[in-house]
Amino acid sequence: MLGGYVKRILYVDLTSGKMSEKEPEEFLLKRFIGGSGLGAKYLFEGTGPATDPLGPENILIFMTGPLTGTKVPLSSRYEVISKSPLTGIYGESDSGGSWGSELKKAGFDGIMIRGRASKPTYLWINEGQAELRSADHLWGLDTYSVEDIVKNETDKRAVVACIGPAGEKLARIAAIINDGKHGRAAARCGLGAVMGSKHLKAIVVRGTKEIEVANSEALERSVKELAPSILDKARNMHDYGTSGGMTAMEYLGDLPIKNWQLGSWEDGAEKISGQTMAKTILSGRYYCRGCIIGCGREVKFDSAKYGKVDGAGPEYETLAMLGSNCLVDDLEALAKANDLCNRYGLDTISTGAAIAFAMEAYERGLITVDETEGNPLTWGNPDALIELIHKIGRREGLGWLLGEGVKRASEKIGGLSIEFAIHVKGLELPAHDPRAYYSQGLSYAVSNRGACHLQSLSHIFERNVILKSFGYWTIQDRHGVEGKGELVVKAQNLMCMMDSLKVCKFILFGGVEPPQLVDWLNWVTGMDMSLEDFMRTGERIYNLKRLYNIREGLSRKDDVLPPRILTHRRGKGGSAYNLPPLGELLAQYYECRGWDEMGIPRPEKILELGLEHEASFLQESKRRRNNSST
Amino acid sequence: MLGGYVKRILYVDLTSGKMSEKEPEEFLLKRFIGGSGLGAKYLFEGTGPATDPLGPENILIFMTGPLTGTKVPLSSRYEVISKSPLTGIYGESDSGGSWGSELKKAGFDGIMIRGRASKPTYLWINEGQAELRSADHLWGLDTYSVEDIVKNETDKRAVVACIGPAGEKLARIAAIINDGKHGRAAARCGLGAVMGSKHLKAIVVRGTKEIEVANSEALERSVKELAPSILDKARNMHDYGTSGGMTAMEYLGDLPIKNWQLGSWEDGAEKISGQTMAKTILSGRYYCRGCIIGCGREVKFDSAKYGKVDGAGPEYETLAMLGSNCLVDDLEALAKANDLCNRYGLDTISTGAAIAFAMEAYERGLITVDETEGNPLTWGNPDALIELIHKIGRREGLGWLLGEGVKRASEKIGGLSIEFAIHVKGLELPAHDPRAYYSQGLSYAVSNRGACHLQSLSHIFERNVILKSFGYWTIQDRHGVEGKGELVVKAQNLMCMMDSLKVCKFILFGGVEPPQLVDWLNWVTGMDMSLEDFMRTGERIYNLKRLYNIREGLSRKDDVLPPRILTHRRGKGGSAYNLPPLGELLAQYYECRGWDEMGIPRPEKILELGLEHEASFLQESKRRRNNSST
Repeated sequence: MLGGYVKRILYVDLTSGKMSEKEPEEFLLKRFIGGSGLGAKYLFEGTGPATDPLGPENILIFMTGPLTGTKVPLSSRYEVISKSPLTGIYGESDSGGSWGSELKKAGFDGIMIRGRASKPTYLWINEGQAELRSADHLWGLDTYSVEDIVKNETDKRAVVACIGPAGEKLARIAAIINDGKHGRAAARCGLGAVMGSKHLKAIVVRGTKEIEVANSEALERSVKELAPSILDKARNMHDYGTSGGMTAMEYLGDLPIKNWQLGSWEDGAEKISGQTMAKTILSGRYYCRGCIIGCGREVKFDSAKYGKVDGAGPEYETLAMLGSNCLVDDLEALAKANDLCNRYGLDTISTGAAIAFAMEAYERGLITVDETEGNPLTWGNPDALIELIHKIGRREGLGWLLGEGVKRASEKIGGLSIEFAIHVKGLELPAHDPRAYYSQGLSYAVSNRGACHLQSLSHIFERNVILKSFGYWTIQDRHGVEGKGELVVKAQNLMCMMDSLKVCKFILFGGVEPPQLVDWLNWVTGMDMSLEDFMRTGERIYNLKRLYNIREGLSRKDDVLPPRILTHRRGKGGSAYNLPPLGELLAQYYECRGWDEMGIPRPEKILELGLEHEASFLQESKRRRNNSST
Repeated sequence: MLGGYVKRILYVDLTSGKMSEKEPEEFLLKRFIGGSGLGAKYLFEGTGPATDPLGPENILIFMTGPLTGTKVPLSSRYEVISKSPLTGIYGESDSGGSWGSELKKAGFDGIMIRGRASKPTYLWINEGQAELRSADHLWGLDTYSVEDIVKNETDKRAVVACIGPAGEKLARIAAIINDGKHGRAAARCGLGAVMGSKHLKAIVVRGTKEIEVANSEALERSVKELAPSILDKARNMHDYGTSGGMTAMEYLGDLPIKNWQLGSWEDGAEKISGQTMAKTILSGRYYCRGCIIGCGREVKFDSAKYGKVDGAGPEYETLAMLGSNCLVDDLEALAKANDLCNRYGLDTISTGAAIAFAMEAYERGLITVDETEGNPLTWGNPDALIELIHKIGRREGLGWLLGEGVKRASEKIGGLSIEFAIHVKGLELPAHDPRAYYSQGLSYAVSNRGACHLQSLSHIFERNVILKSFGYWTIQDRHGVEGKGELVVKAQNLMCMMDSLKVCKFILFGGVEPPQLVDWLNWVTGMDMSLEDFMRTGERIYNLKRLYNIREGLSRKDDVLPPRILTHRRGKGGSAYNLPPLGELLAQYYECRGWDEMGIPRPEKILELGLEHEASFLQESKRRRNNSST
């Protein structure tokens, strides 16, 4: 019997309103762990090329991991897995707060949602019991209001994950928001729109069940021992949050500026940094449940221009994508913009990308003044920024188009706009520039969910984190090429495990190395994994997601970077002349992955990972042939 | 009055059967010279995005240059310009032989053909008079037969350019063949299909007019003086033809092998080399009119397997694309294959590429045994090669699909086949590997007609030609990156001039430098160009073609290389581990071209080249906007 799991998955069919439970098979838990890994396996079996991401046949999976809700620090996270309406391929997104651990305490490792409710609905899970309720009165409301109302009608101590108007209206950049005005978000890949397509407004959870752990003594001793040094090492995250590194990012040429065109924005970066926030609008720090670092920001102000804001403050990604990337340096405007994104239920990364894209299209005459309805989309204009977020959230006018994401928006606008729609596989780039960290160039190109820094987080090994247990005794040269394929492979496999366990990746900033994670997993579950088993499991999960995408028709041709990132020199700053040599990086990567030159796992690799069953479609598709062509 | 031109362009409207003549404006001749440059200008004005390449509205332009038919050595060439049915963008293709100079002696600098004849037709131009004749009796015949028949019914001394069955049946890889069994071909870009779409089977020319030259004394003295050294330096070309370098290409990793997968094929290269040909099937050398090198091959044999072949022998490109790239090392088979391509009227480069593509698709199970109708498409199978050429030429079965070119074929077959369809912008790569010569990687990516080595010929400056007048005092490092953007820009501008003058590019192997070309142009025409004017004119022509393609919707996103070339290491041979760093090369190139980061000429560059009128659409398209999207 494995510890760490409650061994119950809730199955919800919204079309029929029927619910049931199943115990996840133990061999699946050992092979795919939980969280992202187990979710990927379920999604792989339950969906495919014929699945419309916004159709009732898509599955929306909420998953915790074995560490969720245990005494492992930074472990109150959950993962949402579904076929993405933004990218059309494998999608996943994770979030912190307290919702993940509350779900587990309420008696479920995860929830599998199929179908489409005939009218707005929410799911109420209370101490092992699940119930579908009408959400007629919630439809159209913003995420913060929803939380207040449903807590009133369920339990004041309940935790809510829900969508705002953007998700209801199927914006492909819509997020799922949890923990209300603390603004935690499973934001990437547009999974809020999947929830909206199912007419599911919220999932409300309440539970007090204790999570059984195989060796709680060893776990607690280790956590107690490590906690001070974790906090000490991650002190800057505590003090200044994720945007504490803003000026450093700018200095290194890592910060996206003016839709990824410029290399330097010194004064601006200072103005929107975590340090400036701490001196001005910061009202407190937010700790996800069980966290000892507290990187979350709380802000409070009442400005003549933007009104009152009191709640979650903006993260680095938000400040960079809505701020520097749009040349907006007004911190209050950005805090307001962040607040609006949380309320409408929007991914701040994709939203910032879409607005920067629109500003460039406007400058180039591809979006007319008429379409902006009087608020000129000029660079650095905070009023235009805020106005456009309202429009995206409500899906009005130009906002409708931008809510489709930059790939679709550029295809509609046409012409040169395709050249400055900065995405990979349809997912907008997050706020780390591949020209500053070559490993991220490779990561963005190959990441299973499209352009993503979190699926490898490899740039931290090129900046300030040394991973001795992987044989990296120094910081890697960020503009170096040698060994980068291997670095990204290792980092991705590790991230697959962290997304499956689930534990916050920021624990790496606290000096925790992978062998420690293996110990924690073993102590929680009673497994006896070696570091090698652990990393092999991560590799299995990574390859499974790749197989999902290959089945959707992806191959090496899709492992690309936007032309601007490949060929446009930023001209100034810490990465003024650097361009990531993608071909070389990919060649290393495929070799290191054991994939063929087309990005398909070789038969030996499939066998080594025990994915023969999942990969059997590769043989079938060989025999398939479009006969209409001859 | 400019020398070198006869100052008459023949306008043919095949729909109405009407013909007229116009004198080309002198300012156009000065700005665009002739050949490719003048043709590009006419095509730019007469066609556009709405033009269907195979519709009657497309224009098929045959152009000579001011040097054509003069005493300038290697100058009996002509250029065909049209919107390409293979790539859908600017298309051009040139050829030697005697047709170009004969057209000029017949009294025309060029021919502009519009419309579509109601039935098969040929054009007979005799000493300044033009006449359309029925080609009913020629339709369906191969190119060699056509020549025999039309010479009989016009003039034994007439010269013929015509299409074979492939062009009639609109194969997008169909060529225009001239000088009959000497097998000269304007082969690239599928312009044979444009001729077929117009129901124009042949253009037959006969003339004896002397070309007036401004300073014949200086010209003749110079030619007399230089001839011995040209011949001496290009001796290897004379002795062994273009395939005299076959084993060297293999050694350097330049030869495409097994659809661009392998790096080494020693025995094979030796077997199909020009040296082996000289010892076996070679029966003579062919000199285009006015040539002193004689790189053309004539072969003669009668084999039990392939029957009798007596005529044009295969070039390097043909031997590489149909030979090494398909792993076929049987020289007689390749000579037969070449003969068939000439007769059917097929581009041997694109045909070889299509067959190598099909062999790989067959190996991967994407083409079934049924589709090959009993002749297994195994690598190195000469019978399959020959059988498939028949099928492509006749457009039967699988041959129909392959005649569409590898881009369309891969889109129809689908799946992974897109990964090994080796083309840029729809034009199949010629037989020089960008992994062996980085400058060619850049050239292929940006070339206006798609993947083409001749539009820069830059690899010769990385191999054996030193261009002192351009400041290159040594051979450039073929795997070096620095300065490659500039090298390609200079080489392309020079090639634009050579394609417009028209003079054979092989004169560079004879040690002729650009200042010599300027002198010849000035002596022929009476112009007073400096080297700078000359190169600026080339730059104008290059940018005009780019503008044509931008108007068609192309930009930086289309300046790519096939994934295999970017990420697949050949593993063996002289370029075993090299991959061209395309992003870096493009960045240099755009900068050097004075284009913006999206590959669009900047306003200053437009002004500098006097292309304001041609570039005015750039302003208009800014104001265009697809309103259906909001």
